[in-house]
Amino acid sequence: MFESKFIVLDGPDGCGKSTQARLLAEYIHLAGVEVALFRDPGSTVIGEKIREILLDTGNVAMSDRTELLLYMAARAQLYAECIVPALAQGKCVILDRWVSSTCAYQGFAGGVGVERVIDIAEHSLERVWPDVTAILDVGLETSASRMNRELDRMEQKGCDYHNKVRQGFLDFARQRKDVIIIDAHETIETVNANVIAGVEQFFKKL
Amino acid sequence: MFESKFIVLDGPDGCGKSTQARLLAEYIHLAGVEVALFRDPGSTVIGEKIREILLDTGNVAMSDRTELLLYMAARAQLYAECIVPALAQGKCVILDRWVSSTCAYQGFAGGVGVERVIDIAEHSLERVWPDVTAILDVGLETSASRMNRELDRMEQKGCDYHNKVRQGFLDFARQRKDVIIIDAHETIETVNANVIAGVEQFFKKL
Repeated sequence: MFESKFIVLDGPDGCGKSTQARLLAEYIHLAGVEVALFRDPGSTVIGEKIREILLDTGNVAMSDRTELLLYMAARAQLYAECIVPALAQGKCVILDRWVSSTCAYQGFAGGVGVERVIDIAEHSLERVWPDVTAILDVGLETSASRMNRELDRMEQKGCDYHNKVRQGFLDFARQRKDVIIIDAHETIETVNANVIAGVEQFFKKL
Repeated sequence: MFESKFIVLDGPDGCGKSTQARLLAEYIHLAGVEVALFRDPGSTVIGEKIREILLDTGNVAMSDRTELLLYMAARAQLYAECIVPALAQGKCVILDRWVSSTCAYQGFAGGVGVERVIDIAEHSLERVWPDVTAILDVGLETSASRMNRELDRMEQKGCDYHNKVRQGFLDFARQRKDVIIIDAHETIETVNANVIAGVEQFFKKL
């Protein structure tokens, strides 16, 4: 079921993506399929340098379009350097964030527009859409309680922005058949079980 | 003639763009118009960081698409942060490289394709096309003799690539009415006179 599958976990800051991506990777690994787990932006030397620019709290003057293009650049590198070879080897590729993030943040919450994000993604990437994207949905109160640390440039953008981001993810999920929504307010264990059930159910239906 | 005009000097490495951009800026300044001179990629804090990634000789694994998107990101920032305000103040904006470079390098000489570059540029930038682009055309022998220093990642790509780049610039110029070609094999003074004459003639015809 998981061989050469491209799975994305996405959602607002503090939704538990990184933890859940790790737990899903462990589950799939125990099921006997090799897993390649990456974070976006990042996971390549070039991508990590781009990530530094994106998250640097000093870069307050960054335009929405610059932001969007930097995310796509990191992603194009990750795709060419890591995702293509891993899928070709039969591995299950799990991504912590992908194009869905850019649709929600820069497209919906920022001023760029979701359609423009998708246009640029389709020109920038060989493969824009994963097999399945699981959106971990979480309200601001829960996510804030999970982020008890110094915030980066994206995380510092305020409540209104982050509420819009959440709406952006839900809106994105409603418009696409390859996206599932997981309630991420529960404990790590419950959310993990729901992610596994959601992804397995999705692949069984294909 | 030069108020609020957006002028690009472009061409292969070693064609003398930076020197000629500076000399043209001096000429226009003496003619009584304030000039804002920028280099692309760069000229903003964010753009200079992107430039570092692009020119770092360690980044050999960079994919063509990543390269293209990083150039567009730097450009989007330069446009929003510097070019728009300068043009609004009536200044003449002179750019050392712009979209024409990406068409010639990543589009024509790299594997991306000129049409894809233009598509991405049109989605990435509010204003893709300057009022006039002067291409400084130069053969490999002349340009190599002018680059008597350590080469960066882009400059290290070899003769075949750089011959294609030159063809890419000439091809680009043939396809657009807002592009002029200047023979850049001559002395700095002669090329400067030809750049001034070419740009002035172009604006008189408008």
